[in-house]
Amino acid sequence: MKTWEVETPAILVDLDRLERNVRRAQAYCDAHGIRFRPHMKTHKTPEIGRMQIAQGAVGLTCAKLGEVEIMAAAGLSDLMLAYPVWGAGKLRRLTAVAERCCLTVVFDSAEVADAIAEAARAAGTPIGALVEVDTGMRRCGVAPGPALVDLCRRVAELPGLTFRGLMTYQGWQNGPTDAREAQMRAEGDRVAAVLNELSDAGLTCEAVSGGTSPGLFFAHLAPAITENRSGTYVFNDRNMVSSGAATWDDCAMRIAVTVISNAVSGQIVVDGGSKTFTSDATPGFDGFGRFVEDPELTLWKMNEEHGYTRLGAGSPPRRIGERLHVIPNHVCVAMNMQDEIWVHRGDEVVDCWKIAARGKLR
Amino acid sequence: MKTWEVETPAILVDLDRLERNVRRAQAYCDAHGIRFRPHMKTHKTPEIGRMQIAQGAVGLTCAKLGEVEIMAAAGLSDLMLAYPVWGAGKLRRLTAVAERCCLTVVFDSAEVADAIAEAARAAGTPIGALVEVDTGMRRCGVAPGPALVDLCRRVAELPGLTFRGLMTYQGWQNGPTDAREAQMRAEGDRVAAVLNELSDAGLTCEAVSGGTSPGLFFAHLAPAITENRSGTYVFNDRNMVSSGAATWDDCAMRIAVTVISNAVSGQIVVDGGSKTFTSDATPGFDGFGRFVEDPELTLWKMNEEHGYTRLGAGSPPRRIGERLHVIPNHVCVAMNMQDEIWVHRGDEVVDCWKIAARGKLR
Repeated sequence: MKTWEVETPAILVDLDRLERNVRRAQAYCDAHGIRFRPHMKTHKTPEIGRMQIAQGAVGLTCAKLGEVEIMAAAGLSDLMLAYPVWGAGKLRRLTAVAERCCLTVVFDSAEVADAIAEAARAAGTPIGALVEVDTGMRRCGVAPGPALVDLCRRVAELPGLTFRGLMTYQGWQNGPTDAREAQMRAEGDRVAAVLNELSDAGLTCEAVSGGTSPGLFFAHLAPAITENRSGTYVFNDRNMVSSGAATWDDCAMRIAVTVISNAVSGQIVVDGGSKTFTSDATPGFDGFGRFVEDPELTLWKMNEEHGYTRLGAGSPPRRIGERLHVIPNHVCVAMNMQDEIWVHRGDEVVDCWKIAARGKLR
Repeated sequence: MKTWEVETPAILVDLDRLERNVRRAQAYCDAHGIRFRPHMKTHKTPEIGRMQIAQGAVGLTCAKLGEVEIMAAAGLSDLMLAYPVWGAGKLRRLTAVAERCCLTVVFDSAEVADAIAEAARAAGTPIGALVEVDTGMRRCGVAPGPALVDLCRRVAELPGLTFRGLMTYQGWQNGPTDAREAQMRAEGDRVAAVLNELSDAGLTCEAVSGGTSPGLFFAHLAPAITENRSGTYVFNDRNMVSSGAATWDDCAMRIAVTVISNAVSGQIVVDGGSKTFTSDATPGFDGFGRFVEDPELTLWKMNEEHGYTRLGAGSPPRRIGERLHVIPNHVCVAMNMQDEIWVHRGDEVVDCWKIAARGKLR
């Protein structure tokens, strides 16, 4: 089967580029002694998780319990759930899956710590724990200081939990290279100061999880962060190119679309809209994706199934039925809109993988 | 089971409100002699489609072929596919599903008309057709004039297709009531002029499809538009309230979320982000949804699984584990993010419906 025979809108993944991205990131982490635990939220696909492990990743990071369940069922054995779990039903699921894999959870409150510890104790399944520290992104996490030390101590003393260390959320590193280097060094310094405070309190961290794809190749500048959980690097996207962390040639995922109308002058409509691309924007770029065949095309507006695409000054006209390929703004959310990816080498489709953890919100 | 026992993030649908919305819209259409063919893209759920038919809808409108297949398999028998179909595989699926239901398709080009006609002829399954006219929204559709008349004539003469009339896309009607009434009357005048042109050419339209939920209750002001395909009215959302077409009490769909962090001062984080709400904005409102329990809460920023929620000046603090309910900006896209809806009367969950046509992009 050829790539142009896949019905659109469809996700195409260039296997050569994907493998190259996975190898390059792993080689970087290996060279710097960073334990790599990539975030599976980007691909949501067991086949790619196994590829990351085969290259040397120590395990995977998941965002939701349902993703942990999918990855554990697929044989991935060392999983981190970087998200607070709450509620009786989820705690039952958590302890059940903890029996099938080596599981570490993350949270930022005594309430969540106590509840997970009690469930783990009752089930006789100890669970590893990282405490989330807020080093400035103001999402989740306890700010450095006595409250953070107290929470870590509580976790270390709670039967049912094994205190393993910290998690920090680094968000985006944008801007020129020297600014991003400085940002990463400052993050490392903040984490090192927290580790000193914890050490003074007699608490040892065997792991500190951090990282984000735009800053992946700067991670060695923050040696206090021992584990990296970047995700987007496997495919890259318009956000990654915008941040300076990838080139268009590094983009392994494209969405194939078809021109379904050219009746309005100066415009074509493609068969993907917000249900295909999502409405996520990219700083510094107009519209919702980059057309590989003609970067002058602008996907400037969408309804759910309609992509309003403006022709550029130099754009050739496009026929009804013509296929085009778009690199989305944000690949993680676009992956969540479809049930499978078509994997190809050159123009030959070599496999179709189910995005098994798509839509696992709980 | 009680609503508060459903794991979050989850879609809750208030059955009393849903039934009231369905009845009110149908009663309006009946009173004005408008054939109601609601768009199923909002609910994507056979149970709700059957409810609409039971109340008197003549059929359903679908956006993609995969949605037609789901609804036909669920026993819905009169379906309109308001979207151009292209490609050999899709044409095979189109003629196959046309054998199981009364099917009307919509397009705006001779290329699509010819391809569908040929497939229908080869399969021995005639298919009804509307030609899309662009009355000013500049999405799809041929502008009024000789080219439109030519395309309609071509369709009327093509074996395999049955020319049934026109479709127009009305988009949003916002603004004060008198402006919306004027907009609807002008739309009716434009369509009437096109019908005259077609009549002069000997072409009769048995159906003109139009409509959009924000303008639903103004539809009688455009009598040339004989069928209405509004969709969002079943649930309503923040966009509908913003447009003036619904009240908060008309909103039948809410997303239940749980507070998973309150570590950062002035903020809580809920367990739904862009993978739950999507990044669709609403004109005139900040953020990504309205919190039922406290409209002063602002869901101002999201990551995929994190909803950054700012407390208002009068907001009470929120505990970890507390459940809140959010009316999303755009209910159609939020419905596409989950696999099922929890249907309740009062706080009693009475059913769980699979969103069977979720993610049917092709």
